[in-house]
Amino acid sequence: MAIRATMPTSTSALSFTETLSLLALSVACFAVIANTFQGDGAPLIASLAFSGIAFATSYSMIRWLGPTFMKAGLKGKDMSKAHKKEIPETMGAVCAVVYLLAVTIFIPFPFYKDIVAATSGGGNRDVVQTIENVQTGRFLHRFPHNKLAAYLSAILTIQSVSILGIGDDLFDIRWRHKFFIPGIASIPLLIIYFVDFGVTHIVVPIPLRPYLGELLQLGFLYYLYMFAIAIFCPNSINILAGINGIEVSQSLVIAVLLALNDCYYLLNPYPHPATDSHLFSLYMLLPFIGVSLALWCHNWYPSKVFVGDTYCYFAGMVFAVVSILGHFSKTLLLLLIPQIFNFLYSVPQLFHIVQCPRHRLPRFNSRTNLMEPSVTEWQYPPKPIISVFLKLLDKLYLLRVTTNQEGQITESTNFTLLNLWLVWFGPKREDRLAMELLAMQTVVGFLGLFIRHNFAMVLFEKDNLYGVV
Amino acid sequence: MAIRATMPTSTSALSFTETLSLLALSVACFAVIANTFQGDGAPLIASLAFSGIAFATSYSMIRWLGPTFMKAGLKGKDMSKAHKKEIPETMGAVCAVVYLLAVTIFIPFPFYKDIVAATSGGGNRDVVQTIENVQTGRFLHRFPHNKLAAYLSAILTIQSVSILGIGDDLFDIRWRHKFFIPGIASIPLLIIYFVDFGVTHIVVPIPLRPYLGELLQLGFLYYLYMFAIAIFCPNSINILAGINGIEVSQSLVIAVLLALNDCYYLLNPYPHPATDSHLFSLYMLLPFIGVSLALWCHNWYPSKVFVGDTYCYFAGMVFAVVSILGHFSKTLLLLLIPQIFNFLYSVPQLFHIVQCPRHRLPRFNSRTNLMEPSVTEWQYPPKPIISVFLKLLDKLYLLRVTTNQEGQITESTNFTLLNLWLVWFGPKREDRLAMELLAMQTVVGFLGLFIRHNFAMVLFEKDNLYGVV
Repeated sequence: MAIRATMPTSTSALSFTETLSLLALSVACFAVIANTFQGDGAPLIASLAFSGIAFATSYSMIRWLGPTFMKAGLKGKDMSKAHKKEIPETMGAVCAVVYLLAVTIFIPFPFYKDIVAATSGGGNRDVVQTIENVQTGRFLHRFPHNKLAAYLSAILTIQSVSILGIGDDLFDIRWRHKFFIPGIASIPLLIIYFVDFGVTHIVVPIPLRPYLGELLQLGFLYYLYMFAIAIFCPNSINILAGINGIEVSQSLVIAVLLALNDCYYLLNPYPHPATDSHLFSLYMLLPFIGVSLALWCHNWYPSKVFVGDTYCYFAGMVFAVVSILGHFSKTLLLLLIPQIFNFLYSVPQLFHIVQCPRHRLPRFNSRTNLMEPSVTEWQYPPKPIISVFLKLLDKLYLLRVTTNQEGQITESTNFTLLNLWLVWFGPKREDRLAMELLAMQTVVGFLGLFIRHNFAMVLFEKDNLYGVV
Repeated sequence: MAIRATMPTSTSALSFTETLSLLALSVACFAVIANTFQGDGAPLIASLAFSGIAFATSYSMIRWLGPTFMKAGLKGKDMSKAHKKEIPETMGAVCAVVYLLAVTIFIPFPFYKDIVAATSGGGNRDVVQTIENVQTGRFLHRFPHNKLAAYLSAILTIQSVSILGIGDDLFDIRWRHKFFIPGIASIPLLIIYFVDFGVTHIVVPIPLRPYLGELLQLGFLYYLYMFAIAIFCPNSINILAGINGIEVSQSLVIAVLLALNDCYYLLNPYPHPATDSHLFSLYMLLPFIGVSLALWCHNWYPSKVFVGDTYCYFAGMVFAVVSILGHFSKTLLLLLIPQIFNFLYSVPQLFHIVQCPRHRLPRFNSRTNLMEPSVTEWQYPPKPIISVFLKLLDKLYLLRVTTNQEGQITESTNFTLLNLWLVWFGPKREDRLAMELLAMQTVVGFLGLFIRHNFAMVLFEKDNLYGVV
């Protein structure tokens, strides 16, 4: 075993440096967690430590499980490389399982003070309660069961989407079916929301108040809205894909921006009514950042593993869940602007208004080693109306079409943001393309947050005082 | 489509009769559920209806998904048939997913009355509440959040074991690792038990009270006990396996006996303090019986699908969860006597005291079409102490050994209940063997329940008045 640690005999072993670093990180994190027991159980510090352990665990397991996944047939070819070798696929499942374990074991920490209060009276741990008191639940009412149910519903929903995502990766479900997978997975969230909260009104923007009143009761429509968010987030990440590392990187950017937004509320000198929601959001996001970073190390260009649809569903559902339960889904949508654009831009192909090939990822040019926009070839010229539409997009720099001598369209680039970026800025290496898109995602995200915190005041008078939507 | 429905073109289509029956059942069940909205939302009736729908759904999906599972490599050969053809494996995963969906969508029903009370004041649905009341949560405290968290922790645990079970079926994890899978899956249960209940004392039997007192605080040991139950139940079902239909049938017998035990409490003329626990148990068991029956139809001799380790883990965890949260784990153990015997009997091979081949299922004799005890061949004679031990078991009719002229052991039957049964009662057809074992399981189970309800009074004075363990 010692030899194996110093000299990795296969690609699935950790190097000596890696083993040492991960071990050091884990030991440090365990020490931090042990320390939180001494004080009043600072859950945010504990959450950070859990995220560190989650990182170390998923980093090692992704490496170790590679051959096992390959053997079970979970593998794929990297099409954008000169040497198209097979690498493990669906590694997002490892992240999801580690994440779920981490957030589950974390449960006692945010409720630590309450447990002390519930079991030993008024937060004073030295007061020993008689068995009768505990048993008859005299102090149990102090325990915030409502928060626990919300937290559990989040875990349950993320776990559901992970199971269904693994099914998708195994069985290669058709696009029109897989679109609804996150919808099915969101059922626990909607049901528990219905049973547990039932808050279905939204704050109306000031200009509309004369017509709609201050609060608008949406009722059933509110559930439809949450359902739509839960379907959109995972799918929007799943379709902004196709080059090494893009799925994990965009998820990391969104997660970090959401976490910064949460910190904004927590660092506010005046205690904000939405503090609890944003603490909850951090508890869910920090371990997510941990496991995603571990995956990122293996998935960034040149990829040594693929993430699978499981990861995209998992990531999207984490965002959907925290934003729905934290009542900041509009903020989330501001951070998803590139994904929303990519989805809207994809609509002509997704709904088969325009021909849609099986894969739309950018094309790898093996002579230049650069990525180029992939195209759909028109064996028959498109219908006149489609033709006009495509040429108009070409004029607006939103597409590139190739025509023959008769002016008939023979080729058009595929409708994805990645291809459009390549149309705009020319061919580039795979990692360069990913980095530029991530820079754009970051800039747009910060802009979105800036808008949210400066213009929301104008539109809503107070900055989310009610903590709704 | 009409043609396909009347004349199944493949083995994966439902026959016309099947389609009609399942549709009729589903429509009837939906009608029943719609009807419960009229009254006070009788959750037990609704649970029965949900179980009917769960049966119809999993019956159809098991059939439809057969080819998909085969294509993804989830298939196995039936070794105990003359024609060893490949059939789909891991169909327990379909049952688990349908079950989880059913118990999740069911959540609002047991809490229906409370929702009405919480949102419209005192159970009177005609009193319209102002938004302020609902928003400030003036009525929310009436809602039984503690029960919701227990219910959610049950779903979460069963979902965890299903994910890990699917991983086991995919990756063919080694026995000494897979043993702990249910333990990992039980973490949500233990954590939420810790946060939510924390009741860790047991009622001491009367003869021991002078020494231990009336209630014994077990603390940490109680969690170890729950952990052990959660590891034991799924594994004990997983090792009493190897012939067509035995996994599902034994689970069905146990589930039905547990449900009967629950009914015993509910039909009691005096309201029993444990009523809520047993209602909860029924809500979890009825849909389980539904999906298991659907699987049974496909898995009984001659099997058209295999259940996979997923099913055994799933079934065992359902039992563990209801018995832990319902505080009747000792009753469960009485129903698991054949499994406990099988486990104890297997110990010499499981812990490699005696040679253990990869498969220990009974051997199929293709000439007689009967099952015979499978044997371990001793290429070298066993050590003297082992030899004495094996010959002693042979004397006690607990094993059959074959010796050569020098009296050295050359063969011994494998240490499983199935093989022992064949040693006792001679070779028999696969379905006959399964039926005899199930009859035994049923008789032992009824005996266990009889003991529990008649002797518990003597040992504990009152019949589980505290509702603990």
